[in-house]
Amino acid sequence: MALRHYTLDLNLSAAVDPASTVPGLLSIFQEQEMTETVHETNGHGYLATFVGKNGRLVVLRVHSHGLVTIDLQCYQEDNIAQLDNLLNALEKKLKDLLKGNITRIKRLPALIRGGEVDRYWPTADGRLIEYDFDRVVYEEDSAYQNIRILHSKQFGNILILNGDVNLAESDVAYTQAIIGSGKENYAGKEVLILGGGDGGILAEVVKQKPKMITMKVIDGCKVHMRKTCGNILDNLKGDCYQILVEDCVPVLKKYVQEGRTFDYVINDLTAIPISTEPEEDSTWEFLRLILDLAIKVLHPTGKYFTQGNSVNLSEALSLYEEQLGKLSCPVGFSKEVVCVPSYLELWVFYTIWKK
Amino acid sequence: MALRHYTLDLNLSAAVDPASTVPGLLSIFQEQEMTETVHETNGHGYLATFVGKNGRLVVLRVHSHGLVTIDLQCYQEDNIAQLDNLLNALEKKLKDLLKGNITRIKRLPALIRGGEVDRYWPTADGRLIEYDFDRVVYEEDSAYQNIRILHSKQFGNILILNGDVNLAESDVAYTQAIIGSGKENYAGKEVLILGGGDGGILAEVVKQKPKMITMKVIDGCKVHMRKTCGNILDNLKGDCYQILVEDCVPVLKKYVQEGRTFDYVINDLTAIPISTEPEEDSTWEFLRLILDLAIKVLHPTGKYFTQGNSVNLSEALSLYEEQLGKLSCPVGFSKEVVCVPSYLELWVFYTIWKK
Repeated sequence: MALRHYTLDLNLSAAVDPASTVPGLLSIFQEQEMTETVHETNGHGYLATFVGKNGRLVVLRVHSHGLVTIDLQCYQEDNIAQLDNLLNALEKKLKDLLKGNITRIKRLPALIRGGEVDRYWPTADGRLIEYDFDRVVYEEDSAYQNIRILHSKQFGNILILNGDVNLAESDVAYTQAIIGSGKENYAGKEVLILGGGDGGILAEVVKQKPKMITMKVIDGCKVHMRKTCGNILDNLKGDCYQILVEDCVPVLKKYVQEGRTFDYVINDLTAIPISTEPEEDSTWEFLRLILDLAIKVLHPTGKYFTQGNSVNLSEALSLYEEQLGKLSCPVGFSKEVVCVPSYLELWVFYTIWKK
Repeated sequence: MALRHYTLDLNLSAAVDPASTVPGLLSIFQEQEMTETVHETNGHGYLATFVGKNGRLVVLRVHSHGLVTIDLQCYQEDNIAQLDNLLNALEKKLKDLLKGNITRIKRLPALIRGGEVDRYWPTADGRLIEYDFDRVVYEEDSAYQNIRILHSKQFGNILILNGDVNLAESDVAYTQAIIGSGKENYAGKEVLILGGGDGGILAEVVKQKPKMITMKVIDGCKVHMRKTCGNILDNLKGDCYQILVEDCVPVLKKYVQEGRTFDYVINDLTAIPISTEPEEDSTWEFLRLILDLAIKVLHPTGKYFTQGNSVNLSEALSLYEEQLGKLSCPVGFSKEVVCVPSYLELWVFYTIWKK
């Protein structure tokens, strides 16, 4: 049984005396048979809480600098129309009382707290986002990560790894971007894919008849992301591809020793870390390790593709670009900003080559 | 001075006795010198409020069905690190106390209430969305509508009309979709644009050397949406276009009387209404009026393009399609789902033709 949390906020052009505002609202709460408690705030405005039937709670604050905030919490199965009326009545009364002083009225969609399906998944740049998720398709904690697949009415099934929206069935744009935005010809080429467990990249590149794709992956989404991977993950070996379910570091090291190279390396393991304190963050070390090995196995005329992160995380992106200057081989890079539908933020993709 | 509102929610597999949980948390609030008030809830779980220095407020609820919710409100200029520590301490303590019983812990990005720049603009399908807006570029209440232009780091300037995100500088995909997704040839054609005050459609279609574009618009965005409109709105008349700043209904009626027709009619006036009770909503009547007139001035082999609404609003879309069956001339239609970057929801566009 989830909690619905409504907010109603009024910005004022000038501070207002609670004594002229609050009494006008009290009759509304009394009609709802709510019990009032006025709190001592030590000079930080007026604060009252109202507790009603069915677990309803209202917090009313008249802040001392020209802001009125109202919170209304109720249970999901409460009478929503009645609560809308309560908010309408409060809004109307406040408009009457504060006429001419109001610069903004803001009433947000109710926040659903503790709901059966969690609809709130912040963007990489830390913004609050409500998705249209209506059911949990799959949930598991593996040794490596927390894997969730949720269903979105508009985006289809969405893979969420450790709380990060990873890929939705709608996100052809992601796959296209990380294989070079249609500007590459994979025919007859040697391709190495790191990660890509959803199968989307493999399914796309295979269409172009490469010589051989080698893919290192930890676990697959073959049951729940069919629109993304088709049937490509049903067999670990095909005419021009093989999937190795194993850790990629030892395999990369072996390739380096053997002098084996690839025309394309596509790194879909993870977004670049958000932390901008690399010395404190072992994920940056892991990233550099993989990156250095991957560039080592890249053919001199080859290309390395990877996703970056949200275009808004400019510090993290700069730090990543700094790392590129610290590899064993000197590299050049370019980047592209892409709209991946289910991300709800613009995303940066990198192309890296040996200089 | 805005309010930061944090939430910390724990879903439990079984209801928990507040007497075994709450005392363990009290020392944390006492350290913060917060004053506790315990409220009578008439059997709806445990509810306490804590008021602290600097206007801090905590609401702690242990609901009777296996949910713990915590709200923390503070002012924007408060010591954020200290409040993060408080939330961390509460989360850690609750994890210790409820070990094994917790099925989900959710801590959302703080809701900024009453902030100088309003970052919360719900989607058409009613979801809570925080944008990365960092400044107000323009704000005006005209006789027709409330016009706001806000700046987004990733999307550029965004036009918001009556609270609806209308177009961002990043939204080339919108303009492309409403002119036929690159499948039309406008060279030498007669084109009528209804709305489109941002100039994006005009700027794109003009490139294809049409015979004449006639555009009806109420007001322009020529100062703040330069990336969208270029300099096309600086002059109301060009080689192959004229912009009429007037109401489109009387002009359309005149065209019908004169028997004038167009090869393309592009209706960018407004999204289709969300209300699914058409008899109660005059916006549906207005929509039908324009639609019927626009189809009347459409050449028998012409095409009519328009935006629909969020792909999730299937009822509203169906109702729109019903209207298409009630026009003076029989029409056929097709639709396309498009990702417009700044919308943060997939959007439906219609192509309509005379049968």
